[in-house]
Amino acid sequence: MAVSRKIEEMQASSSFIRKMFETGARLKAEFGSDNVYDYSIGNPSAMPPEEFTKILLEEASKEDMHGYMPNAGYPFVREQVAAYLTEEQKVPFRTEDILMTSGAGGALNVALKTILNPGDKILASRPCFMEYNFYCDNHGGKLELVDCLPGFDLDVDAFEAAIDNTTAGLIINSPNNPSGKVYSEETLKKLAAMLERKSAEIGRRIYIVCDEPYRKIVYGGADVPSIPAIYPHTMVCTSYSKDLSVPGERIGFLAVGPELEDRDHVVNGAILCNRILGYVNASALMQRVVGRLQGLAVDVEQYQRKRDALGKILIDCGFDLDLPEGTFYLFPRAPMGDDMMVVNFLQEQNILAVPGRGFGLPGYFRLSYCVDDDMIARSEAAFKRAAENIFG
Amino acid sequence: MAVSRKIEEMQASSSFIRKMFETGARLKAEFGSDNVYDYSIGNPSAMPPEEFTKILLEEASKEDMHGYMPNAGYPFVREQVAAYLTEEQKVPFRTEDILMTSGAGGALNVALKTILNPGDKILASRPCFMEYNFYCDNHGGKLELVDCLPGFDLDVDAFEAAIDNTTAGLIINSPNNPSGKVYSEETLKKLAAMLERKSAEIGRRIYIVCDEPYRKIVYGGADVPSIPAIYPHTMVCTSYSKDLSVPGERIGFLAVGPELEDRDHVVNGAILCNRILGYVNASALMQRVVGRLQGLAVDVEQYQRKRDALGKILIDCGFDLDLPEGTFYLFPRAPMGDDMMVVNFLQEQNILAVPGRGFGLPGYFRLSYCVDDDMIARSEAAFKRAAENIFG
Repeated sequence: MAVSRKIEEMQASSSFIRKMFETGARLKAEFGSDNVYDYSIGNPSAMPPEEFTKILLEEASKEDMHGYMPNAGYPFVREQVAAYLTEEQKVPFRTEDILMTSGAGGALNVALKTILNPGDKILASRPCFMEYNFYCDNHGGKLELVDCLPGFDLDVDAFEAAIDNTTAGLIINSPNNPSGKVYSEETLKKLAAMLERKSAEIGRRIYIVCDEPYRKIVYGGADVPSIPAIYPHTMVCTSYSKDLSVPGERIGFLAVGPELEDRDHVVNGAILCNRILGYVNASALMQRVVGRLQGLAVDVEQYQRKRDALGKILIDCGFDLDLPEGTFYLFPRAPMGDDMMVVNFLQEQNILAVPGRGFGLPGYFRLSYCVDDDMIARSEAAFKRAAENIFG
Repeated sequence: MAVSRKIEEMQASSSFIRKMFETGARLKAEFGSDNVYDYSIGNPSAMPPEEFTKILLEEASKEDMHGYMPNAGYPFVREQVAAYLTEEQKVPFRTEDILMTSGAGGALNVALKTILNPGDKILASRPCFMEYNFYCDNHGGKLELVDCLPGFDLDVDAFEAAIDNTTAGLIINSPNNPSGKVYSEETLKKLAAMLERKSAEIGRRIYIVCDEPYRKIVYGGADVPSIPAIYPHTMVCTSYSKDLSVPGERIGFLAVGPELEDRDHVVNGAILCNRILGYVNASALMQRVVGRLQGLAVDVEQYQRKRDALGKILIDCGFDLDLPEGTFYLFPRAPMGDDMMVVNFLQEQNILAVPGRGFGLPGYFRLSYCVDDDMIARSEAAFKRAAENIFG
């Protein structure tokens, strides 16, 4: 075998997800894609705001603007981001705290490479985006998941019990994919107090790496508390993918808390890591575009409408779920705690969903409702037939 | 120290380059940027071809085209690339052999992560782009440099002597940064024969990772032989950065030789690595643009004119150099073999250059001539003054 042993193993272990995608593709080929209800993928259905296309065309017409810039990004764009973030996060971010990245995935890898020593661990609350496993492993670290409280809230005591002197940081994802949970200020303050205490105890600053690409996809004016305002030793990793419905363009940033301990080393380390991981810099064109669109987001009413429509179908069918406060995912409980059984029964009716074990939490399943309204309506009968088999 | 020990060390060891940049910035602030002759950076001076801007504006006007696509890239773009590459490389590449990446830096990291086991080594010929060190280290490997022959040709015997059973592959960069050398078919055939023999001997396929972003920046119709046509176990890593003068947009690809040993594992491993390194996919917009611009390149006559102008100044000053066959770099010999001395004497005259040790080869220095013609003309007197001090 000439491919790396680790990559070979990763290919093998991700085969169940690949099999799911293959089944989905087969079903679409067999029944036509109109007759398959694909709730498996989080590819935003909203169109980018008109303003995005307008600004993109303006910036794209500037011929001489596709060269290298400093690896951290155009200073004027970083300044635009810092100014907006100062309002949004209630922390005075400066230009030099911002590193423009290739999406949140790029920002997370850069942040983790910057802080991880070999064998260090990163903690996260299950359920979560399981790519975090790879992101930690890429840089010699290890992800350790701790259980959440009922209702998917962070279990601060569980985090505390998991911390030892190999703990470099926590990844906190709010609003959470897949549960839709937004962590409250109260929970975050409790977490921050614990981290202060434990950092002193282990003689090492424990960082929060805060992954928040869904911050603007929240309903009913829900407030997403600022984590760097509560715990200064926080790096914010995020992207414009969901705000502007442009996930394929890979544009986001890393914002290092201005009062973060060892800040200068972390910032310079992150700029170095962004370069040496081969990212070099975030797309020149997209940097200039998002710089001019600070705070803009798609109309979330369309996602709320879809959430309510799909939620009603599921509740009517007898599923147990809370409507999420943010994101565009439903995360219902799997009857009898068997996520694979539910996903298989749904698949029999041409409905594609992701089992909770894909997020570290069997016993639930995820439905991504960033899809056409029409598909949601058409899928109702299929959900009813699946429910009869599941509950019958 | 809360930052990773390795990243801390890397920051410290790159301090001489940072110091150079700081000196450059200080000189520009003090004397005005018109009076500082910056030959240190390879940021293409050519404007992107008009066709690039035209196609970019067309593609940018398609609102609903910024979503996710398969991680390997749009199938139709991969098909466009494969069709062109089949002509260019004289090897029948197929759609499934192509992975669209975030530039050559992204492609190289993906290729290396795919094949490196912990402790494996990658060989390269000095002088070379020293970021290869980081790219290998990122994935648990180690770069080992072997000496070149006089005139910067590959020393096949030196490669052979360095190969052992930890050797995963070679990085071959042609045309070479910084020497401008284009490796001949004869040299490459000798290299391929040796690699066949040694792969059998160590019981492990040694791959070539071929880094060729300067393929189209060659002079007098120089032929750049196809490496995958000569050694099928080759992955081509490249970008459109120099072809189209768009390095800030980070768009390129990895092309896996269709007859490469263990091909399916390598291709699937590379797609996985592109995803888990956080790249996810190359920019949606830029993929569509470059797909339509296969084979297009800036007019290299402008670079040839600059090469000849700067080369003449240096030769008139008494420096020893061969004009390069490709790239936009001159790599003259440093008098008395002292690259730091030359760079310091040049800096005294407000000329910025990079010492050869920045490319693993002290005894030379690099001048990047992708700059304004006018700057080259204005720098002549400064070079003459520096030469008087150096040779005097």
